[in-house]
Amino acid sequence: MIRRRWDEELGISTLTPIRGIGERLAAWHAAGGARVDFVNCDVTDFPALLELFARVQPETIVHFGQQRSAPFSMIDRDRAALTLINNTLGNLNVLWAMREIVPDAHLVKLGTMGEYGTPNIEVEEGFITIEHKGRRDRLPFPKSPNSFYHLTKVADSDQIYFACRAWDLRATDLNQGVVYGLETDDTPADTALVNRFDYDGVYGTVLNRFCVEAALGYPLTVYGVGGQTRAFLNIKDTVRCIALAVEAAAVPGEFRVFNQFTEIFSVLELAKRVQHVAAAAGRAVTIDHLENPRVERETHYYSSVNTQLLSLGLEPHLLDDAAIGGLIEAADANQERIDRAQIAPTVQWSDPSRAMARGVRLNLRASGGAGVTAR
Amino acid sequence: MIRRRWDEELGISTLTPIRGIGERLAAWHAAGGARVDFVNCDVTDFPALLELFARVQPETIVHFGQQRSAPFSMIDRDRAALTLINNTLGNLNVLWAMREIVPDAHLVKLGTMGEYGTPNIEVEEGFITIEHKGRRDRLPFPKSPNSFYHLTKVADSDQIYFACRAWDLRATDLNQGVVYGLETDDTPADTALVNRFDYDGVYGTVLNRFCVEAALGYPLTVYGVGGQTRAFLNIKDTVRCIALAVEAAAVPGEFRVFNQFTEIFSVLELAKRVQHVAAAAGRAVTIDHLENPRVERETHYYSSVNTQLLSLGLEPHLLDDAAIGGLIEAADANQERIDRAQIAPTVQWSDPSRAMARGVRLNLRASGGAGVTAR
Repeated sequence: MIRRRWDEELGISTLTPIRGIGERLAAWHAAGGARVDFVNCDVTDFPALLELFARVQPETIVHFGQQRSAPFSMIDRDRAALTLINNTLGNLNVLWAMREIVPDAHLVKLGTMGEYGTPNIEVEEGFITIEHKGRRDRLPFPKSPNSFYHLTKVADSDQIYFACRAWDLRATDLNQGVVYGLETDDTPADTALVNRFDYDGVYGTVLNRFCVEAALGYPLTVYGVGGQTRAFLNIKDTVRCIALAVEAAAVPGEFRVFNQFTEIFSVLELAKRVQHVAAAAGRAVTIDHLENPRVERETHYYSSVNTQLLSLGLEPHLLDDAAIGGLIEAADANQERIDRAQIAPTVQWSDPSRAMARGVRLNLRASGGAGVTAR
Repeated sequence: MIRRRWDEELGISTLTPIRGIGERLAAWHAAGGARVDFVNCDVTDFPALLELFARVQPETIVHFGQQRSAPFSMIDRDRAALTLINNTLGNLNVLWAMREIVPDAHLVKLGTMGEYGTPNIEVEEGFITIEHKGRRDRLPFPKSPNSFYHLTKVADSDQIYFACRAWDLRATDLNQGVVYGLETDDTPADTALVNRFDYDGVYGTVLNRFCVEAALGYPLTVYGVGGQTRAFLNIKDTVRCIALAVEAAAVPGEFRVFNQFTEIFSVLELAKRVQHVAAAAGRAVTIDHLENPRVERETHYYSSVNTQLLSLGLEPHLLDDAAIGGLIEAADANQERIDRAQIAPTVQWSDPSRAMARGVRLNLRASGGAGVTAR
């Protein structure tokens, strides 16, 4: 629930009004949902976590208690430090508490496809068999995280893999793509169950932003060239993937990594999809290319394996015009809640005065020249 | 200086008496050493670090302010958490302080060869070119750290690499092997300049332990089979490597990784070397195989590249009988300071009751069968 405090500090809020946890749980139970208990326990508080595990004796732990925004972690040192402590110290606590109280429980942890960065080879699910100088091994897939937030997710994954090797814990690391969509199968039962719709420069994700811009008749704001290519999934599939991971649990000592996404798009492709759907609904919008606030490659190869969740039975909800139209309508319905000042990027990855030399090197890298630097 | 407090808490101490920092600096200056200023500043205190960098305006930052023991980080959750905060939050602070105050300074950071684990392919210096499904890229070498301490070193390296990409900082990551030896070229000038000689189960390293055991006439205690193979270097070479990295600095945006070691030995080889040298000096000792307190492969392939420091001019001091004999004599000379209760391993990586299933899997892995688990 700390998100509410951070939103206040940053002066941002979700487009959809989110009720208090008590009201949401009451609505859930009134709608006939299975029993959900709530305990207010901070994962960075180790004694509280031990006490909770001892009392509940969980068979499965789905760990979502993390700061999840890359721009938030790049605002300043204090937010980077908060992200490290909350995420990676919290993750360390979960592992030690499992070791001490429930070593046979199954940990399901949310990671991100962003851990891998954008390598020039196909991304595998967590591990890759490398042939090198006539020998071979299956090793963790090399990662190049591009924010302090992404760095914490890589550190978490490394910790969990170690705990599985050393302590015979069992875990599933879900490397999730960018989530879009507002409703799951359960949320329409009550307006109090609605999900967040973040569109701001810190917590908003790209498809949400485009749909809010389309609802306002604003230009769709692509960062840089827009060739940044990422993995996506519908929030309905997020929920299903977690259920699949829980139902077909890892075995003791096993560290599984599932790449949790259903489709791959470039940012510019998404902008064009939104533009097309908006136009069909009588909302003509243009596409603007803003200076990229992030340090990242804007054109690059991208491909990734995602077979494990599909083989467990995931049936993808692909991004169609109806899904995009629904998001634009949701934004339109909440027009009076849109803070227009929050749409533009507010966090710069780097001091612009140092960007020129870097731009030269990133371009070298994109064109295949490694140069003398470790890019 | 926090090591002194940890030593007290654990009831351990270095075999060689280490004087207070004031006395050591006075001895250094009396011996004609170049000016060294001392400021008591904790790297986890970000405002103090900012103030220090602003006042000193360093051209080079050699960052050694870390908890450096794997067993210490495995004692309990609190020591694991302390290691994470001290090392990785401290490292994050150094990077943000560099960004804000001295973005053109060169960071020289001590890493460890232990970050790589023991892959079945040759370890490269930080990066590896991977050919995969008809494509190729040069990516960070995959790492499999085997303790919470090693996990922090991997996280630090990832942070530094990111800061070089995003902020155009420049850095050299020195992945150091296991250090042995007591004296550098400078320390003989005054007994107050002597280095630590740790032989205990938490901070002691393997060659030190064998030499202390030989001095006492105790059996040399090999953990498990003793096929664990590691990279080593003399402390004289440690000092030289840091100087070489500082003199031939990285360029802006560059993240260099040097594998800082000169030789590779298995634990059993080292035991036999010490046994041989001790016997020649009239000290007959046997070799004992203890149950391994760590979770690690005891027989495995190991090879690593270490050409970059050699090409910068490193002239290795190889491990010879004289070096081993000197350590045994140093232990002998400090016999009255040896706490015999501290020699045996005191920290277990894992609950022994969970070890049997793991042993089966580790053996599967060593024999090339990957099984269903991610080992």
